[in-house]
Formats: sequence, C-alpha cells, structure tokens
Amino acid sequence: MEKSTLFQEAFNQTNYQLLAHGKRNVQVLKAAFQQVEDQLDSDLYGTGKVIEAFQEKMAAFLGKDAAIFFPSGTMAQQIALRIWCDEKGMKKVAYHPLSHLEIHEEDGLKEIHNIQTILLADKTRVIELEDVQKMEEGIACLLLELPQREIGGQLPSFETLVQISEYCRAKGIKLHLDGARLLEVLPYYQKSAAEVCTLFDSVYLSFYKGIGGIAGAILAGEPDFIGKSKIWKRRYGGDLISLYPYIVAADFYFEKRVDKMALYYKEAKELAQYFNSCFGMHTLPQVPVSNMFHVHFHYSKEQMEPILTELYTKTGVGFTTNIREIDDNTCYFEASLGDQYANVPKDKISGTFDLLDELMKHKFKDE
Amino acid sequence: MEKSTLFQEAFNQTNYQLLAHGKRNVQVLKAAFQQVEDQLDSDLYGTGKVIEAFQEKMAAFLGKDAAIFFPSGTMAQQIALRIWCDEKGMKKVAYHPLSHLEIHEEDGLKEIHNIQTILLADKTRVIELEDVQKMEEGIACLLLELPQREIGGQLPSFETLVQISEYCRAKGIKLHLDGARLLEVLPYYQKSAAEVCTLFDSVYLSFYKGIGGIAGAILAGEPDFIGKSKIWKRRYGGDLISLYPYIVAADFYFEKRVDKMALYYKEAKELAQYFNSCFGMHTLPQVPVSNMFHVHFHYSKEQMEPILTELYTKTGVGFTTNIREIDDNTCYFEASLGDQYANVPKDKISGTFDLLDELMKHKFKDE
Repeated sequence: MEKSTLFQEAFNQTNYQLLAHGKRNVQVLKAAFQQVEDQLDSDLYGTGKVIEAFQEKMAAFLGKDAAIFFPSGTMAQQIALRIWCDEKGMKKVAYHPLSHLEIHEEDGLKEIHNIQTILLADKTRVIELEDVQKMEEGIACLLLELPQREIGGQLPSFETLVQISEYCRAKGIKLHLDGARLLEVLPYYQKSAAEVCTLFDSVYLSFYKGIGGIAGAILAGEPDFIGKSKIWKRRYGGDLISLYPYIVAADFYFEKRVDKMALYYKEAKELAQYFNSCFGMHTLPQVPVSNMFHVHFHYSKEQMEPILTELYTKTGVGFTTNIREIDDNTCYFEASLGDQYANVPKDKISGTFDLLDELMKHKFKDE
Repeated sequence: MEKSTLFQEAFNQTNYQLLAHGKRNVQVLKAAFQQVEDQLDSDLYGTGKVIEAFQEKMAAFLGKDAAIFFPSGTMAQQIALRIWCDEKGMKKVAYHPLSHLEIHEEDGLKEIHNIQTILLADKTRVIELEDVQKMEEGIACLLLELPQREIGGQLPSFETLVQISEYCRAKGIKLHLDGARLLEVLPYYQKSAAEVCTLFDSVYLSFYKGIGGIAGAILAGEPDFIGKSKIWKRRYGGDLISLYPYIVAADFYFEKRVDKMALYYKEAKELAQYFNSCFGMHTLPQVPVSNMFHVHFHYSKEQMEPILTELYTKTGVGFTTNIREIDDNTCYFEASLGDQYANVPKDKISGTFDLLDELMKHKFKDE
C-alpha cells in the first residue's frame, strides 16, 4: 500500500473525527427527506411552493427583499457580478487574489463575461479600507468574502466593513458579499445575518459549508436584481425543472445548524489552541474568528503523513486526510468544525494532542 | 373559482390519467433512493464512483468513448456548441427555428458565447438533407433535435440522418444530437442508441423526459471533447460538489424505463388515433413516431377548457391541464405517453373518447 493509502486507511479506521459534520453520503439526503411527505410537489423551473417559500424565508433571514435559489455559488456569483457590471456600464470588478472566482472557477467570469478582475490586498491578508480607497477608477463592483477562506478564514473588523460599505456607496461602487460561510462568522461579529447583509447590495450564501446540506446557494438582493438573476440562471442552464433535492436538504440542515454556529466557533478556538500547543505547527489565524482555520505544519507532507497515520491508529481519533503541500518543507490542512467535535470525549482530545506533541518532538526536536 | 382553476380541479379529481408517468413529487426521489444504501458516498466535484460509473455506463450505451453528467441539457448543449465553435474557429451554428436553444434559454448561447445561429427549415417541418446542403459557409456545427419536440415530435427518416451525417463529415461540419428524447425514437427507427449516435460527433440525452428522472443530462463524445466540457462545466457552475441526487434517480429510472419505450410508442399511436377519431381536433404528427404528439383543437382555449372540464368530471379520466393558445380560434397541448396509460382500463379509454366526440359535436357541429 502506498503511504497516502495507509494514511487514508488509518483515518477510515478511527472511531472519532474532530472536524466536519460527518461523511458526505446518501444518508445526508435520506435524513433530510425522512419527514417530508411523498406528495410534496416538485418545484417547476423556479416556481412552486417548495422553492418560493424557501427563497422568501432566506430573503427575510438575510434582510433583503428578494432571493433566488441557485444550484451553485459559482453560478450565482458570476451572475451577480455580471448584473452589476451591466448596470454600471463597466466591465471591471475587484476582489481578493484568493477569491473563489479567481482560483476555483476555471476563469468563468472572464471566459463567459469578459469581465476584468482587479486583485486587492495580497495573498496573506484580508482586504482593508485602505485597499479599497486606493482602487483604480471604473470598478463596477467590489466582492468581499467573509471569512476569507484560503487564508484560514480571516475577517476584517466589523467597523472596517461598515467603512468599506460607506465608501462604496459614496463612490457608487456596488458591494457584493461572498457569504458562502456567512453564518459561520456571525458569532464573532455578534451581528445578525441581516445586520451584515445590509452593508451589501447583493449577498450569496452556501448551503453545504457550515450548514452541511447537499449543494446549492441563495443569492439575495433587490427584486429588480433578482429578476435579472433569474434570466441569467436560465441562460446558464441553472433553472432546473427540479431543484427540490437541494432545497429540501438546505432547509433541513439550515434549521438543524443555524443556531449551532456559536458552538462551532467556540470549539474551533479550543481546537486551534490544542494544535498551537504542539511542537512544529501553528494555526492561521492563531485565534479563529469562525468555525474554520488552517493548520500549518513546519515539515513536509511526506514527513507529516506517517506521523498522522501513527496518531490516528494509536488514538482512534482523526482529523483529516487532505494534507496540502505548500513547498518542499511545509504543508497545511483546512479545519472546519461541525457536529462531530462534540461527540469526542474531552480526554480523548487532550490525549490525542499529548501524543501528537510527543511524536513531533521525538521525530523533529533533535534534528 | 376561475375557469382554469375549475379545469385544474376537475383534472386533480380524476382517477385515471392517460399521459406521463405520474406526479412530479418527492415520491419520485424517495423511490429511487429506497434501495440505495445510506453509506454510498457522494460524488465530489465530478469524481467518485457514483458519477464515474454512471458516466461510463452512459458512454457505452450511446456508443461513445466518454460522457459527462450535467445538471441540465441547457448547460450541456451550449457547451458542446461552444467547444465545436472553438475547434473550428467559427462562431456560427445551425439548428431548427424551434430548437430549445432558440426559444427556451433566454438566448444563453448568444449572450454567453456570442455565437451566431442560422435557422434551417421552417417552423412547420423537420430539417431535411436539402436544408443542410443549402446552408451558408462558415457553420461550425449543425444541431439536430430528435424528435423535433415543438412540432409534435416529428422525425426525418433514418436514411436522411445518414445522408446529413455523411454530408457534414465531408464538409468538416460537426454534427451534434439534441437527443433529449433519444430513447423515445429508437423503436420507430428500429436502431440502438449507439447506431443513431455514431452519426453524430456529440450527443446529449436528458433524464427527465421519457425516462422520468428528477433532472440532469449526459453529454457524450470523444475524450478530448468531454475533457473540455468538464472545464466549461466548472466555469458554468455546473460542477457541483454533489450531483448524486440526480444521478441515482437518473440511473434508477433509466433501468426502469429503457425497455418500455416501444410500449409508449405503441400506446401513443393508439391514443393519437382516439383523438383523430373525435370531431374538431387532430394530432401532429397524425401517426406518432415516438411516445409524443400534439393535439390540436380547432377551437379556442376558452371554448375547450369547459368541455374538457366536463369530460374529466364525467369520466374520471384526464389528460392535461396545459392547453396552449395558438391564436384566438385554435389551441393545442403536448401529449407524452408514460407509465400511466397502461393503468387505464381499455373501456374507460374508449368511453372517454366517445363522450369527447359527443361533447364536441353537441357544442360545435351545428355552429
């Protein structure tokens, strides 16, 4: 067996997992549909009770006048930016260099819409007011991602958000929220979703991140904006005859987890502390501001996998199999807290990190 | 109650429905998942057993080397045409004036890809070899829809298909099959899916037409073409983290109905004959060549709805509530045969059409 297969196998054998909600399998769908009656009618190309009621519920939750359900955030956000570009008559938007649109969408925004992207701040930190003030002219829309996932889920202060929002309104720049993980940051901001969203002209929320649904997204804003989104959703082939498999699950897991975000946040801070107490690693950010953070190992992926394999095997506790190389000497993984952490006995957790620290020191301390 | 509400209500009260497979409700999903084990892993952004196995199965069925599952045919077909345009270095495609791309997609092909469309034949008939031979220069791809849905599901002869295919290959024009309802025409052609698809460079098949799944589509072709499709699927936001709700249902209903298409076709011919035997209406085509046809009434929608309301109420047999106005004096509806027809007692059917003929004559014959 190859090393990474052994690693995967060791993880599969663990009794406890510290991260996420659990496996992404068919049971996720079955649980959501268990209490839905067989006779509930499908939505039909964006119409029907199942989709309309959920859209209205999410619009109200986000403090917007209208909302539309999309199969994916990729589709929803490209469309939002296109609409704002059309409205402003400018083909330029600004966002972070590690925005999902820049690195995970095969350049859809550029290839489909011929929209130019201006990258603000740098790859190590979030966008601050000064970055926005220094932006070049001709930007139709600024996209802010809260939290900034690719740097461990960092956040600007709420005061900065307010200042950026005021600046953009004064300058006539549309402000769009990549709120894939919006719910996850509300406990840190101590704000409601609507209080955050009121700073933005349009908002996207995902249902398979902290909420843990199957797929799908909501785009919210003014009715005119949402009306235009509906046309683009049809153009993209996203106006499916039936989206209910995602909608029913989104609603089910939203209800199940919307009030647990403060718990995940608290657990994330606790877990980050455990990692930071071990030799040869640190978390980014050091103190999480949501349910997520990154764990950076000061050693290579090749060095770390056997250690974690041993750790998982000896403790029966696992956290990830997805170690990503940064360079030849360092690697990291993304940690997102969900339902599973609460199921792990406290002494199991502390014992796991005692052993991790020991294994790290044994292997690296005298090198 | 308004007239059309009364009409809908009368239909809802019927014990038997002549058309389609049944209601589009949650039960459709539950039935498909009943025998799937909870532990089956989700697909993950286009990878994983559930999606890969189904793509391979469909590629083999269609006689192509590769296939990719899409959330919708709209997305799949625009992408196919874009890839062929890029390959040929030409931004022009040809199809029927009533193609789905021309009338149901908010001009996605033009708005997203800036592709020019050349309309062949006219709205009353299918594309014939002569239309293709007379096409202007510079066409990257010709799209043929089998059957041509918006004219009642008409078909060219298989010989014509072969000739068009040979002509396009000789001229270097790519040939794409809009096979949304491909399975439904195989009994008429007396060909396998692969025998039809071999005439085409790329093929799209839908899973919620005759197959009766929830949503989703397959695009099949050469590996290089499918590789490019995967990139575009990501750009469109169609590369969802989980497509399994549609895939599991597509596979379940494909297996359930792939061998019933000949039955639906036979039933369609029988049912069309019943309609054609009644006063004041005819079917298009007169003799169906698939499971579908259109029923044209020689009277207005306003005149027809009360008659059908009375028919449904008196017989307990219904066929549609979706009557579409053609002009002030005529209207039509689309008939697609599915599982339900076989459940209706033969004498119920003949009795229903006896009464329909009687009601029509009583109302209109002496006008």
